[in-house]
Amino acid sequence: MNQIKQYINQHASRFEKELFAWLEIPSISTLKIYKPHIKASAELLKKYLLQAGIASVKLLETEGNPLVYGEKIVDEKLPTILIYGHYDVQPVDPLALWTNPPFSPTIRDGKIYARGVADDKGQVFAHVKALEIMHQLGNLPCNIKLLIEGEEEVGSGGLQRFLDKKENLQLIQADCVVVSDTSIQAMDKPSIPIALRGITALTIKIQSAKKDLHSGVYGGAVANPIQVLCTLLAALKNKEGQVAIPGFYDDVVALSTAERNAMNSGFSLEKYKEELGIADVDGEKDYTTLERVGIRPALDINGMWGGYIEEGVKTVLPAEAHANISIRLVANQDPLKVAQACKAYLISKAPKSVRIEVDIHQGGSKAFKTSTRTPGLKAARKAFKQVWGKDPVWMYEGGSIPILSKMQDKMGVDVVLLGFGLDSDNIHSPNEHFGIKNLHLGIETIINFYQTFAKTK
Amino acid sequence: MNQIKQYINQHASRFEKELFAWLEIPSISTLKIYKPHIKASAELLKKYLLQAGIASVKLLETEGNPLVYGEKIVDEKLPTILIYGHYDVQPVDPLALWTNPPFSPTIRDGKIYARGVADDKGQVFAHVKALEIMHQLGNLPCNIKLLIEGEEEVGSGGLQRFLDKKENLQLIQADCVVVSDTSIQAMDKPSIPIALRGITALTIKIQSAKKDLHSGVYGGAVANPIQVLCTLLAALKNKEGQVAIPGFYDDVVALSTAERNAMNSGFSLEKYKEELGIADVDGEKDYTTLERVGIRPALDINGMWGGYIEEGVKTVLPAEAHANISIRLVANQDPLKVAQACKAYLISKAPKSVRIEVDIHQGGSKAFKTSTRTPGLKAARKAFKQVWGKDPVWMYEGGSIPILSKMQDKMGVDVVLLGFGLDSDNIHSPNEHFGIKNLHLGIETIINFYQTFAKTK
Repeated sequence: MNQIKQYINQHASRFEKELFAWLEIPSISTLKIYKPHIKASAELLKKYLLQAGIASVKLLETEGNPLVYGEKIVDEKLPTILIYGHYDVQPVDPLALWTNPPFSPTIRDGKIYARGVADDKGQVFAHVKALEIMHQLGNLPCNIKLLIEGEEEVGSGGLQRFLDKKENLQLIQADCVVVSDTSIQAMDKPSIPIALRGITALTIKIQSAKKDLHSGVYGGAVANPIQVLCTLLAALKNKEGQVAIPGFYDDVVALSTAERNAMNSGFSLEKYKEELGIADVDGEKDYTTLERVGIRPALDINGMWGGYIEEGVKTVLPAEAHANISIRLVANQDPLKVAQACKAYLISKAPKSVRIEVDIHQGGSKAFKTSTRTPGLKAARKAFKQVWGKDPVWMYEGGSIPILSKMQDKMGVDVVLLGFGLDSDNIHSPNEHFGIKNLHLGIETIINFYQTFAKTK
Repeated sequence: MNQIKQYINQHASRFEKELFAWLEIPSISTLKIYKPHIKASAELLKKYLLQAGIASVKLLETEGNPLVYGEKIVDEKLPTILIYGHYDVQPVDPLALWTNPPFSPTIRDGKIYARGVADDKGQVFAHVKALEIMHQLGNLPCNIKLLIEGEEEVGSGGLQRFLDKKENLQLIQADCVVVSDTSIQAMDKPSIPIALRGITALTIKIQSAKKDLHSGVYGGAVANPIQVLCTLLAALKNKEGQVAIPGFYDDVVALSTAERNAMNSGFSLEKYKEELGIADVDGEKDYTTLERVGIRPALDINGMWGGYIEEGVKTVLPAEAHANISIRLVANQDPLKVAQACKAYLISKAPKSVRIEVDIHQGGSKAFKTSTRTPGLKAARKAFKQVWGKDPVWMYEGGSIPILSKMQDKMGVDVVLLGFGLDSDNIHSPNEHFGIKNLHLGIETIINFYQTFAKTK
């Protein structure tokens, strides 16, 4: 391993320069105006992979953003690892809360601050550099395929359809899928997620009169769409913090008491509240905080707007109100079934005085869950132990990587979540960051994992 | 009257040109960046008043926007009329719904389309032209004072404090206050408002965590401020459409059955719904539509926002959610008492997991109500009858002119609402307009009113 550490140290400043250049590209997938930057982000990744010895790398067009695909087959007899990740990033607002511009990477206290650095460019970059090192040192121990997409933050639409074609499944066939897009509990507490929540999302529009009205002339006689929408959204939860949609919890798999006890150990509620700056947590009755995000579904309003939302006051009775909601799912909930139940519930509760539109977004995904006894998970555990000096703990994570359950189903292989971020990295928030130490240890862990996994076949 | 009609016809195109120049100034009082235009709007009005023979006109500074004040004392023994109006206008969004730019006045079908043309520049302009005509024809029958403010759309803060000084009350003392800032029921159904609702407004902020969070990592365990705000705002109304704030209706004066019957006659609910494009009206149980806006208080959410409100999806658990609400008041509700009850109710319902801030806006105002038996109202009725050919009906209006009840109290005089707009003029909405015929008949009605009222003393 000393040779690897040495390489990383020798090339650390070049690594940073290259990662910075990638982070400077605002590859926000949810906003159409960033289309050119999506393309540029994919192209730069392709360049870095060529440089790392993946000569076959190319962009595969999809119905959405292109996939960056490459492979290096050392020997057909060796196991093959498919590396999955994404080069698209989340939007950056509210901009006012960033300390440095989100696309001007800056180092503070050994951490790189930039949108997408932890989620997921920095982590994909760790794989690129692991490959470069093994290429340079001539010790790549297995076959490698890479599939890096550009729509993870918007439901992986293009990749979803890509996986529906047999020839594509053949192309990317592997013995194990490795994903570095998650975090560990703490620097001294490495962890491996064994479950991720699924997701489904809906958009709601309430329309009252055909135009904005004077709230004096009409107020009290015409339905206020914001009031109606508030009433509908309030009705999504009951006083016990449960989601009130009929049938919502029907398919949820319950964990055993032993499993629940294991996942709750060592958690400090006080520290959690302090870090977030909240007086109290809030959620479903009879479940702990880690259970609420790990093994229970959750419904969140991600955005809501209606009426006059600028400075000052406008006494308007608005014509419309809007909300975006997303639902995090656990095993064995079906995204479409849950979304349809939500839609039906909202429509059933809307008064006759308004029109309601509920759109279910494309790209819903089931929850992901893996056994801890697969060769991949075993190799991951060993790699963490060797590089971080501690046995990693198994984690139930609240986030989602939309494509994983589909990959698992379609490819019939193990998926290993080998992530190196921290929960405090502010992903999806202002001041997203990723430790340089996390990057370097990540590269080492990845190489160690490849080497261990290569011996399992 | 023929001489007056003739003057209007001869000068109609100049009138339009002058009014257009005033309408082109975006004097939006709620947005700070329009401060220079507020000033420009006041200055141009001053110029028009000089031109109309009011030599004493000047701008009076207040804590807020300047007042345009002028007077013409013909004879101390004659009655004095104080003309009140405003030169500030509402914001213009949503801009996309305007047919012409809001500050580029355009004539279509005999109506002038521009922000502020009905509310209230066009109606103040009618007074200016009435004065010009009487000045030119040498037949001003009474003393005239004008007090045109620049903060009517934001609660008349400057004027409120102006009225607290004795010397100011002496300056503007009159026998009657005339306000042209309301509408008639239809061109063939002139009407005079005898009541206006008061208003009070509040801003609500809910804060959960200190920053936006990833809705996967934290969703289900940390309070969603939008969800909390929805629940609070939903609780402001009950299923009967009543405002659920304890004590809300305590001070409301009930009307007699005879009064209620009179105000409801001749109203077509079908036509009302069709004009607004709604399947049904919505409001307080046991009251008709006209009662709901005329004699009952109403609470409306004017704007609400939180989380990601741009194009696409961002799965964020936002840190904050915001709402602006306003409450229209009727006699004898006290603005501050009602606002405080609302604030206390919201705070009492907020869970411990969030911080709540509720700000009561300055400038709340009581409802306005006048007797129909005052000399001013009698003169107004006669003027409408002569110019429009029909007896006007008395109306309970839902809108507010914040300063009127204070003027009534402080000055101890009659207030006459002599307005010439139509409910369909889209005030506070896109495509605000004002009929050229309404302007011309308005000028005639005003002159007629001055002449009749002058004889009452």
